[in-house]
Amino acid sequence: MNRALAHALSAFLLALAPTLVGAQSSAAPARPYHVVIQVSDNDPAKWNLALNNARNVQADLGMDNVDVEVVAYGPGLAMLKTDSAVAQRIQSASSQGVGVIACENTMKNTKVERSQILPGVKFVDAGVVHIMKRQKEGWGYVRP
Amino acid sequence: MNRALAHALSAFLLALAPTLVGAQSSAAPARPYHVVIQVSDNDPAKWNLALNNARNVQADLGMDNVDVEVVAYGPGLAMLKTDSAVAQRIQSASSQGVGVIACENTMKNTKVERSQILPGVKFVDAGVVHIMKRQKEGWGYVRP
Amino acid sequence: MNRALAHALSAFLLALAPTLVGAQSSAAPARPYHVVIQVSDNDPAKWNLALNNARNVQADLGMDNVDVEVVAYGPGLAMLKTDSAVAQRIQSASSQGVGVIACENTMKNTKVERSQILPGVKFVDAGVVHIMKRQKEGWGYVRP
Repeated sequence: MNRALAHALSAFLLALAPTLVGAQSSAAPARPYHVVIQVSDNDPAKWNLALNNARNVQADLGMDNVDVEVVAYGPGLAMLKTDSAVAQRIQSASSQGVGVIACENTMKNTKVERSQILPGVKFVDAGVVHIMKRQKEGWGYVRP
Repeated sequence: MNRALAHALSAFLLALAPTLVGAQSSAAPARPYHVVIQVSDNDPAKWNLALNNARNVQADLGMDNVDVEVVAYGPGLAMLKTDSAVAQRIQSASSQGVGVIACENTMKNTKVERSQILPGVKFVDAGVVHIMKRQKEGWGYVRP
Repeated sequence: MNRALAHALSAFLLALAPTLVGAQSSAAPARPYHVVIQVSDNDPAKWNLALNNARNVQADLGMDNVDVEVVAYGPGLAMLKTDSAVAQRIQSASSQGVGVIACENTMKNTKVERSQILPGVKFVDAGVVHIMKRQKEGWGYVRP
């Protein structure tokens, strides 16, 4: 192999390295499965369906093999309030490792304080942006 | 090129190979397009919309260029029962190569037997997990 | 490095090149974020939620960092008609760089002419196929 070809190869490989490292880091996360479940309806039947989905995903894939988040925004925020019809199930899901997340944009727009949200719930600035970021990271998306 | 650099290059390429093979196998499937359409509402208007979506995708992309699956779970399972309002359209979609899939978790929870499901329908343990797996494989996801 | 190994390396790198270029072109688009928001319900509350989502995404990520499209199809097409309850918001979103898109399949099936659609709205043959293509290009998908 001559010197010029060797240099060209080295340059090519160096140019690839960042892309490949990036590809590997998103293709080989700690857990093999990830899903973000969206709740944007003010409808307890949908809330129960979303919680069933979270539970079934953990049961089917194994709790240690999947990251599950439930993101509530817009009219779906009511699911996470202290007076929610599924308050007990939210706490149970949270204790089972499901990330339960409220949208602070929605909270501001509807004048809901953090004290009105169930304990254990996490907060993001914008639920929809969080969902986009998760998809960009390779998470699945389910909207029951 | 000296021997040390040559060895480093070989090691680097060997380390890359599995990632790249993985990337190629998911980026180059038999058909260029794939979509999984979710039905989780007990609402014949949504069922018809989902079936219209399946048909339009096949018409627009060409039947041989796209894999289409319709996955029914939760309250959407009713779409696939023998007394479904869209029973004839389900059979027609199935005969046109659309994979029509019922969630057995939902069937167990609502005491629906396979004999109550339309012929031609396939079964998966958990509809939501099937949807996640399809997304992980690079399929599009549409929830009408 | 002997000549045989050099040839093997070159062949291997040539074989990789198209995959890597493909991966880079989808991983390095002009803007870092992209989302397609689906509207398929004839429900002004959903239309407002979709438009809120579009606005929040732009506000949170910065208008120059995100491509946002709203695709209306099926019963959602009514959102884009000249008599829409959110006609003013559609025009405003459009002027803020949100791509607002109508499904011509739906228009044909429901006998809606282009003259009945708000100015500034763009057209695609099949809304659902457009959504699939965007996902294939790496766009996020949100169905409010």
